[in-house]
Amino acid sequence: MHNNDHSGHGDQSGHGEQSTPSDAPVERRGLSRRALLGLGIAGAGVVGAGVGVAADRLLVQPAVAASGAAGVYPFYGEHQSGIVTAAQDRLHFAAFDVADISRDELVELLQDWTVAAARMTQGGSAGEFGPASGPYDAPPDDTGEALDLPAAGLTITFGFGPTLFQTADGTDRFGLASRRPPALIELPHFPADALVDTLTGGDLCVQACSDDPQVAVHAIRNLSRIAFGRASVRWSQLGFGRTSSTTRAQTTPRNLFGFKDGTANLKAEDTAQVTDHVWAHPDDGAAWMAGGSYLVSRKIRMTIETWDRQSLREQETLIGRTKGEGGPLSGGTEFHEPDFATTGRDDAPLIDADSHLSVAHPDHNDGAVILRRGYNFVDGNDDLGRLNAGLFFICFQRDPATQFVPIQLNLAKNDRMNEYIRHVGSGIFAVPPGASEGGYIGSGLFEGR
Amino acid sequence: MHNNDHSGHGDQSGHGEQSTPSDAPVERRGLSRRALLGLGIAGAGVVGAGVGVAADRLLVQPAVAASGAAGVYPFYGEHQSGIVTAAQDRLHFAAFDVADISRDELVELLQDWTVAAARMTQGGSAGEFGPASGPYDAPPDDTGEALDLPAAGLTITFGFGPTLFQTADGTDRFGLASRRPPALIELPHFPADALVDTLTGGDLCVQACSDDPQVAVHAIRNLSRIAFGRASVRWSQLGFGRTSSTTRAQTTPRNLFGFKDGTANLKAEDTAQVTDHVWAHPDDGAAWMAGGSYLVSRKIRMTIETWDRQSLREQETLIGRTKGEGGPLSGGTEFHEPDFATTGRDDAPLIDADSHLSVAHPDHNDGAVILRRGYNFVDGNDDLGRLNAGLFFICFQRDPATQFVPIQLNLAKNDRMNEYIRHVGSGIFAVPPGASEGGYIGSGLFEGR
Repeated sequence: MHNNDHSGHGDQSGHGEQSTPSDAPVERRGLSRRALLGLGIAGAGVVGAGVGVAADRLLVQPAVAASGAAGVYPFYGEHQSGIVTAAQDRLHFAAFDVADISRDELVELLQDWTVAAARMTQGGSAGEFGPASGPYDAPPDDTGEALDLPAAGLTITFGFGPTLFQTADGTDRFGLASRRPPALIELPHFPADALVDTLTGGDLCVQACSDDPQVAVHAIRNLSRIAFGRASVRWSQLGFGRTSSTTRAQTTPRNLFGFKDGTANLKAEDTAQVTDHVWAHPDDGAAWMAGGSYLVSRKIRMTIETWDRQSLREQETLIGRTKGEGGPLSGGTEFHEPDFATTGRDDAPLIDADSHLSVAHPDHNDGAVILRRGYNFVDGNDDLGRLNAGLFFICFQRDPATQFVPIQLNLAKNDRMNEYIRHVGSGIFAVPPGASEGGYIGSGLFEGR
Repeated sequence: MHNNDHSGHGDQSGHGEQSTPSDAPVERRGLSRRALLGLGIAGAGVVGAGVGVAADRLLVQPAVAASGAAGVYPFYGEHQSGIVTAAQDRLHFAAFDVADISRDELVELLQDWTVAAARMTQGGSAGEFGPASGPYDAPPDDTGEALDLPAAGLTITFGFGPTLFQTADGTDRFGLASRRPPALIELPHFPADALVDTLTGGDLCVQACSDDPQVAVHAIRNLSRIAFGRASVRWSQLGFGRTSSTTRAQTTPRNLFGFKDGTANLKAEDTAQVTDHVWAHPDDGAAWMAGGSYLVSRKIRMTIETWDRQSLREQETLIGRTKGEGGPLSGGTEFHEPDFATTGRDDAPLIDADSHLSVAHPDHNDGAVILRRGYNFVDGNDDLGRLNAGLFFICFQRDPATQFVPIQLNLAKNDRMNEYIRHVGSGIFAVPPGASEGGYIGSGLFEGR
């Protein structure tokens, strides 16, 4: 619990946080019996023979990080990785519905996920290839598509949705209703929300980030496989081209409007800010969440074809920044503080009051800040040939009710950019603190105070 | 026309084919008047003023290749790049329907696409930021999301579908029916085909490959923007984790069944094979296609949840190779030739006759070979929580009727892997030869013999 190495203070490449296999032991505990049964692994499999390959040839050791891009982040620690960790380039995010299982079975699922996630983030396979029951007549405990790939900075971050604590009709499925953190609110309906039920909500979430999409996909797929019969994917999202720099060493990437996004983002180096605005505190109403955070996700479809037909002037006016450099329209380069007071021709402010920059700025949201960690997405095209594309917004914060919600209410009411976006998916999740070795993610919810 | 540097003989990183800006001039010709009108660019725009930014600050020069991953491939040449080019890691592929436009307007579209593609592949923007009509009161001629990114090995490859030459009802829309290459057949219905109309066909195709998905997406988006009013996206596909090594220097990647894919693939170094089996020849029935090739795409959905529940023995038997090493079940490592004759217990061959390896092997397809260049895909999940995932298969060949078609007929009838896959999309396109500088892609179709 005292290992704070994963707090994301590393450089852009992840070098600062690399571990070698020798100091990053991989949890070797096997899957629960339930998982093995769920996967159809019989107890008395026949050991395969005949083709002359060693039975354990697929027992994969963690890959040694070969380069910066192949960084390895710790899995165990005070906080989960993937929050203040320098944002990786690719995302696979999944929300799960939990099946009609018992509280003990839910705990077993979290234990199984913890074991597999700890292995995969260190560059290992999700599980061993079933030596207990014979390697051939059981399904492999890893699907294989990442066998030759390094961890590539993989982090796996778990969260709990409101419905895990209490369903809409008030059912306390797992005896957790009294343990629900006050900060895990239901998000209000925001003006112009166009949420699609099948893209919204979820009892559990898993955020897998890596610099290699095949590694992120492999992680979600194997966690989904392990959950078979206990939880199933409700919705999932692939993303690329992160839209925020979470550390100062990262250059600001661009969203699909073509603008730099996340310039004014809270940075992992701002230790005091992170402590105040990202991590849950013991006295926030749910002691078991201390060191955790709250994740809000929004799938924001952009009508990019319409956007692309707006003049450069209009685009820059709406955003409040220049498109090339990303400097505020009040002058200066990207990291110049915007000046909302100075006026130009016709005494109009140089930065429109209803520009995205102005409406989203902490100065106009009672100082509220969030740690953004979103990604661009393109999900093919719709029936009209328009790209189904946009921003998969993710943010972390200590208290959504006083951070994301007022900012989004303000944006939904006043941001002129709304003409070009539509919020189609939404999620809120309590992201518990990190697990200690031998423990499991979320243990405090079930066992703690 | 004598520049053959882009034939893919480079190393894995693309170093072998890098060009610097000085030897890779970017075509500076502007877009056609039609394109400008289509984009809503007025002829008498007012030059923006007031925020003190130089009007041409967004006129982007080609990025200098900063590293191997930021390689630049030539656009002009005897062949189009993106065929025997070392396969990049990411794909955005789009099929377009052409609107009710004239033959001249179709030519203009191809000219506009050529200009933009030549710029983008050299690391430039798709177009200049509208200096002809004022930079501010016109939409930018580039959408911006790749402004800071290098080319990252971007190639853009264009193709013509059968319906461009003649529609299903026999209409010769553009006076091209007599120019249709005999090799551009309609694909037959294969056993168990489950093709979805909205994922199949197209008058034009564009394959954008890059090591950065944002760069590939940017290319398709801008070509789609430029085509506005003239052609629209019929279907599109993002892919990652290429499933073939097109050069010997590339390690064999894995498909989402977790197996190495493309081991026995035709390689770019096999000059004689490439000449015989990939490039169209002048006497193949359409002289204008000489130096071009024929692209077949198949969107193959994998039922990976079912696959993941099969034993390792069953998986390896179906594929005919070991999962870890990828060696044939007749023994040896990955590149050992499979031995289909040797039998094991019960006198059964070590490699099942209906395994994928056996059925797809040239020995069992009259020597037919193809140049594979496919990618894995995950398009989120379906309503049952199953990952909507699989293989976006792409292959190039001189004559689909004697290469892809017999191989696929054999596979569709005999490959046991069919239990776990479903072909849901399909396309066939004539990929014309490369353009020379000042020319445009497909000029031979309209102007040549």
